[in-house]
Amino acid sequence: MRISELSDRSGIALATIKYYLREGLLHQGEQVAATRAVYDDSHLRRLRLIRALLEVGRLPVAAIKQVIDAVEDESLPVHQMLGTAQYALGPATEPEPAEEWQTARAEADRLIDERGWTVAPDAPTRNELAQTLVTLRRVGLPTDLTRYAETAGGLAAAELDRLPLDGSRESTVEAVVLGTVLYGRAFDTLRRLAHESESARRLTAKDQPPSAG
Amino acid sequence: MRISELSDRSGIALATIKYYLREGLLHQGEQVAATRAVYDDSHLRRLRLIRALLEVGRLPVAAIKQVIDAVEDESLPVHQMLGTAQYALGPATEPEPAEEWQTARAEADRLIDERGWTVAPDAPTRNELAQTLVTLRRVGLPTDLTRYAETAGGLAAAELDRLPLDGSRESTVEAVVLGTVLYGRAFDTLRRLAHESESARRLTAKDQPPSAG
Repeated sequence: MRISELSDRSGIALATIKYYLREGLLHQGEQVAATRAVYDDSHLRRLRLIRALLEVGRLPVAAIKQVIDAVEDESLPVHQMLGTAQYALGPATEPEPAEEWQTARAEADRLIDERGWTVAPDAPTRNELAQTLVTLRRVGLPTDLTRYAETAGGLAAAELDRLPLDGSRESTVEAVVLGTVLYGRAFDTLRRLAHESESARRLTAKDQPPSAG
Repeated sequence: MRISELSDRSGIALATIKYYLREGLLHQGEQVAATRAVYDDSHLRRLRLIRALLEVGRLPVAAIKQVIDAVEDESLPVHQMLGTAQYALGPATEPEPAEEWQTARAEADRLIDERGWTVAPDAPTRNELAQTLVTLRRVGLPTDLTRYAETAGGLAAAELDRLPLDGSRESTVEAVVLGTVLYGRAFDTLRRLAHESESARRLTAKDQPPSAG
């Protein structure tokens, strides 16, 4: 198909598609004449992935480029390709030299080891967890996250069961990014709904005067 | 204490404190002379709450003002005061007239009713959940969130057990905001760590050639 049809079928503006081509996010079409290139379903699939990373994953263009590079590098095992996408979804968290931070990082590593989880030693997610532990300690809230880790483990296993991981590299990354972000968002909303309910149960009895008898 | 001491003890710049006073986030000190006001521990506590809402909750100033108004309105029951804070933490989600959206909203309501949760009919969290259901459906991922709701319910109950809800109105709101955001962040990170581990377990065996024998 021509680029105008690619635009129609994907619902993405021509200028945006040209921008993706320039940035190397979308692979070039097949050049069939000096001023004409044709595109195929692989371009439609790629545009779907770009939109998922952009609109649902809210990744900046530089991070999208990294994920796409990992998708295109077929020598990279699927697990590592998914790691690239997963790591891009978290906030960038730099380790700090302070003892407070190092202690929290050791605590994060211990929590992961205790569960027997297989996580790369240089996974940025470890620093992300350490950072939250530092903040919890600073504000004086309990830092024991055992129950959270157990719950997250059970949920993650069930989650991967429902994500299609056996398609093309492209659709696998897309499913993992969409699933991670959307089910994460759903869980966070449900947790706040449950909070409201739990708080109603505990506090509205208190707010009312004790009943007679 | 004078405003300069309030600044020293809170670690917040004088200009920032003056800004909070002008915006009505921080209550005025006691005017002891034409050009001199004194401040007390209630101002220190309020500054702590403002920083928690700003830095951890990442709320805009207008939302912080709403939460503070709810804290100051002592006729408002604690449960409703906490609701104001909880609602401010979620993204603003507007209902849409489209049938797709209305169906998702009905599904969100059903999920809440099935658990027997007590949630205000006009809670914005209901729209937030509907919005995620719409997106899940659009991208073709399963929309059954029963397991997420069950897990969230168990976690929220355990969470409220560890948050101090019996102090002043100010410290109760502070604990709920900090706990909601920080434990939510911790859970999300742990879920992505568990994903990496689960994906390693499932995929690295596949990436390797079958072993001989």
